[in-house]
Amino acid sequence: MAIAVIGGTGDEGFGLALRLARANEDVIIGSRSEERGAAAERAAGILGDGPRGSVEGTSNEQAAAACDVVFVTVPFAGQTDIYRSIAGSLRPGAIVCDTTTPLATAVGGRAWQVITPWAGSAVEQAKALLPGGIRLVSGFHTVGAEALQKLERSMEGDVLLCGADAEAKATIGALVEKIPNLRWVDAGPLSMARIVERLTAVLVSVNRNYSLHDAGIALTGRDSWGPATRTSKKDG
Amino acid sequence: MAIAVIGGTGDEGFGLALRLARANEDVIIGSRSEERGAAAERAAGILGDGPRGSVEGTSNEQAAAACDVVFVTVPFAGQTDIYRSIAGSLRPGAIVCDTTTPLATAVGGRAWQVITPWAGSAVEQAKALLPGGIRLVSGFHTVGAEALQKLERSMEGDVLLCGADAEAKATIGALVEKIPNLRWVDAGPLSMARIVERLTAVLVSVNRNYSLHDAGIALTGRDSWGPATRTSKKDG
Repeated sequence: MAIAVIGGTGDEGFGLALRLARANEDVIIGSRSEERGAAAERAAGILGDGPRGSVEGTSNEQAAAACDVVFVTVPFAGQTDIYRSIAGSLRPGAIVCDTTTPLATAVGGRAWQVITPWAGSAVEQAKALLPGGIRLVSGFHTVGAEALQKLERSMEGDVLLCGADAEAKATIGALVEKIPNLRWVDAGPLSMARIVERLTAVLVSVNRNYSLHDAGIALTGRDSWGPATRTSKKDG
Repeated sequence: MAIAVIGGTGDEGFGLALRLARANEDVIIGSRSEERGAAAERAAGILGDGPRGSVEGTSNEQAAAACDVVFVTVPFAGQTDIYRSIAGSLRPGAIVCDTTTPLATAVGGRAWQVITPWAGSAVEQAKALLPGGIRLVSGFHTVGAEALQKLERSMEGDVLLCGADAEAKATIGALVEKIPNLRWVDAGPLSMARIVERLTAVLVSVNRNYSLHDAGIALTGRDSWGPATRTSKKDG
């Protein structure tokens, strides 16, 4: 089954779609924009004829309805509208990976500053808009759009995943591991996204200080990460 | 001139005092606790007879008064009391590096959760309590107390420094670089500590998930960091 990338015409979503298709996953780019068809064609052109998954473009609603795994990669300013529009289309039990960061750019501020969603984090705001049973994961905030799109270069850094559902985190984590050199780390329950989401802003600040485009973050302390080794469910 | 470590009988402060003394810096452990003398003796015992700086213990006020560079390594619950107590003793123009994280443990919560200081971050709360002219830097939130204390092991990960004063950041950064294998990264203005301080809680969560004690964070995107290469002062 294909993977949906809602907001897949944006830089982060397009990069993720490219990386997933390169890893032999079929990808459906969802977008409100009429450019979604063109984005799918552009992706196909970049990916070329080698082994790869398919890429097509359609509406957000249709993309959500067609997939058990859905990435939502939209700017914070549009996040509530997008979730309201797909809430009725998502499959029961679908795994939704939210990559939104509540950057202050949503309200005319700076990209190295953030605002605080009432729910605590962007992904918790998404949770409040979705029916029960949707398995939310937060991730990819420390992986830059530019680095994702440079298919010829291997990625650096780790993807920190937050969420209540260990199996959902492992499913997204398995996709992370299909992207060469990327690792995933279980950063804890969904509420940890209140901190982890904001790392995007720290990386924007670091990029700005050192004239970079692709600063990232890697965890130290273990050579390999993957699923948490602790099994207790107590997070509160 | 010696370096003061306020709260130096605590785990993080004691570890930092050890690492600085091992790097040939003279260190004054400041503490309200009567254990400060014993802590200094214990440090001397651990450091042994090799080349090293001196370590002595005294009151927080006397330590602050004696040094141009002061680390403040206290739990968030005691932070305001400590800063009020040393505000009148700090030298004009002193560089103060605050390592406090506003962990929810300060109000009986969990160590992987945080609370939001009214000033935005612990270091901005400190700023509000100090006279003008004190050069505040925020840092060391991603460097664990256990790793600091294990002198026989080299450190992993990077120290993210935040602050308005580039020279003060570079002074603290130069001390970071005296600790084998540690690098420092300029994460931006003091307000970035609103995010960076909280990384301690993410690392507590990761440590918990993987039964570790010393998960850390390293930046990717450059082989070496140090002073920011951007010179613009515009941060707002």
